[in-house]
Amino acid sequence: MTPTITAFERSPDGGKGLARDMRVRWALEEVGQPYDVRLLSFEAMKAPPHLALHPFGQIPTYEEGDLVLFESGAIVFHIAERHAGLLPHNVNARARAITWMFAALNTMEPPIVDRAIARLVERDEAWHEQRMTVVEGRIRKRLSELSGHLSDADWLDGEFSAGDLLMTSVLLRLKSSGLLDEYPNLSAYAARGEARPAYKRAFDAQLAVFTAASTR
Amino acid sequence: MTPTITAFERSPDGGKGLARDMRVRWALEEVGQPYDVRLLSFEAMKAPPHLALHPFGQIPTYEEGDLVLFESGAIVFHIAERHAGLLPHNVNARARAITWMFAALNTMEPPIVDRAIARLVERDEAWHEQRMTVVEGRIRKRLSELSGHLSDADWLDGEFSAGDLLMTSVLLRLKSSGLLDEYPNLSAYAARGEARPAYKRAFDAQLAVFTAASTR
Repeated sequence: MTPTITAFERSPDGGKGLARDMRVRWALEEVGQPYDVRLLSFEAMKAPPHLALHPFGQIPTYEEGDLVLFESGAIVFHIAERHAGLLPHNVNARARAITWMFAALNTMEPPIVDRAIARLVERDEAWHEQRMTVVEGRIRKRLSELSGHLSDADWLDGEFSAGDLLMTSVLLRLKSSGLLDEYPNLSAYAARGEARPAYKRAFDAQLAVFTAASTR
Repeated sequence: MTPTITAFERSPDGGKGLARDMRVRWALEEVGQPYDVRLLSFEAMKAPPHLALHPFGQIPTYEEGDLVLFESGAIVFHIAERHAGLLPHNVNARARAITWMFAALNTMEPPIVDRAIARLVERDEAWHEQRMTVVEGRIRKRLSELSGHLSDADWLDGEFSAGDLLMTSVLLRLKSSGLLDEYPNLSAYAARGEARPAYKRAFDAQLAVFTAASTR
């Protein structure tokens, strides 16, 4: 059964692949699972039909027969559990890969999102730069710890996994900030993720949606 | 094999059960799995032996033979996968419970942590109240959406699950703020979690650690 995911009709990131449908598209491409996409306007995301699928009125959702999921992390996990290629077979290695999924979303992403929100809503405040220094300090602390763990390895724990997929997706949010470049091994790690054919197919697919919306 | 978890020797929350070892203790109590605890000072958390277990130098960790895990969400999931009682047997219901685990940690918790950090490090700034209004607005938006989803149900999706365990743990961080009381059904939901015998056993265990440290 072909699953259907939802995505922004016109992504606020301008097609840079930073919206959370990208993580799900990438996972589906890694395992070779075709999918359909239903595009949503900002209005439709907050309307009752979509809220019935996603209580927080966001994208992506994932529909497969009777099953409806939201939260990109949970959707990526669902895909990883049902198809080979995103979680190791070894029981302990699998548990560690799942640990990295949660680390990406609950330890690494929150200060990065905090920075994005600050740039969006606090940009004109007199205290913006002062606060930004603190927020970026928090991000650097996490990047430094992650960099120390990764060392010169290709991926976080053995083969590429759903943990790397989510961690790369989170780190790429920092690409335009210059922060990632301060940690060459993390910068190379994120570039390795972007270089994967499945990433490229997913990226092109989300960019095509944005381009089509912009030329209408 | 009895797993060993790590916890604060002296929790910064003063034994209120808000440190993240509480989530793991609660899960272990729900499934009836005995466990050992290794207590760590703040210094020990940042020292090489612990960093070898937890790259971000935090608690909790989970050791079980050769397996070492960190991230409370991943540990709770590991426990839920290996023991009955925290995830439904039905495949679709199980996937939805996992969705709520991620929703608790990636959608609900970040603005709540943001508020805690703001109270800790921005308290003396002239703009503290101004920023707090915005941060609390973000929390209220999520609480309102969650409240709408929960409606008059006991738990988020059928029976109590690891999703409810994590969501309750996250909501309890707001208990002293008064924000949770604005949503009576969420307040009652959190109270239902706290009333579970397994929660109480876990709470008492972490409080005993804090009390022992305080009277030394």
